Amino acid sequence: MKVTVTVRPREGILDPQGEALRRSLTGLGYDVTDVRAGKVFDLELEAADEADARRIADEISERVLSNPLIEDYQVGA
Amino acid sequence: MKVTVTVRPREGILDPQGEALRRSLTGLGYDVTDVRAGKVFDLELEAADEADARRIADEISERVLSNPLIEDYQVGA
Repeated sequence: MKVTVTVRPREGILDPQGEALRRSLTGLGYDVTDVRAGKVFDLELEAADEADARRIADEISERVLSNPLIEDYQVGA
Repeated sequence: MKVTVTVRPREGILDPQGEALRRSLTGLGYDVTDVRAGKVFDLELEAADEADARRIADEISERVLSNPLIEDYQVGA
């Protein structure tokens, strides 16, 4: 089953990569006031059904794909 | 205007980060057969309207956020 997990820096947490990109884009002449940089993971996993896939993806996201102290994650289809 | 850009490794292109994650997850006992790792960027930009925002986001994605040789990007709301 395919599951996509998106991981983003939490609100209020500094995001140096996004900030560096914002500065570069401004330097190139783009009127960009904010950039936040996150990650996306497309997983193919074995699961009994969609609820099971969701449960596994939540567990993987918390344990491996994100750092819950500074990042939020979303599990999507 | 808020625009989200998602950048993923192209089909058929090796993804060492995704492969390392797959191996780690398998080692932890998860039945994960494939992982592809990409990036997500949430941009706040000045634009006349939605079409203009889309045009700017396309340009930024091609020039800065992705490497078109090995990555695909998607612009979403």
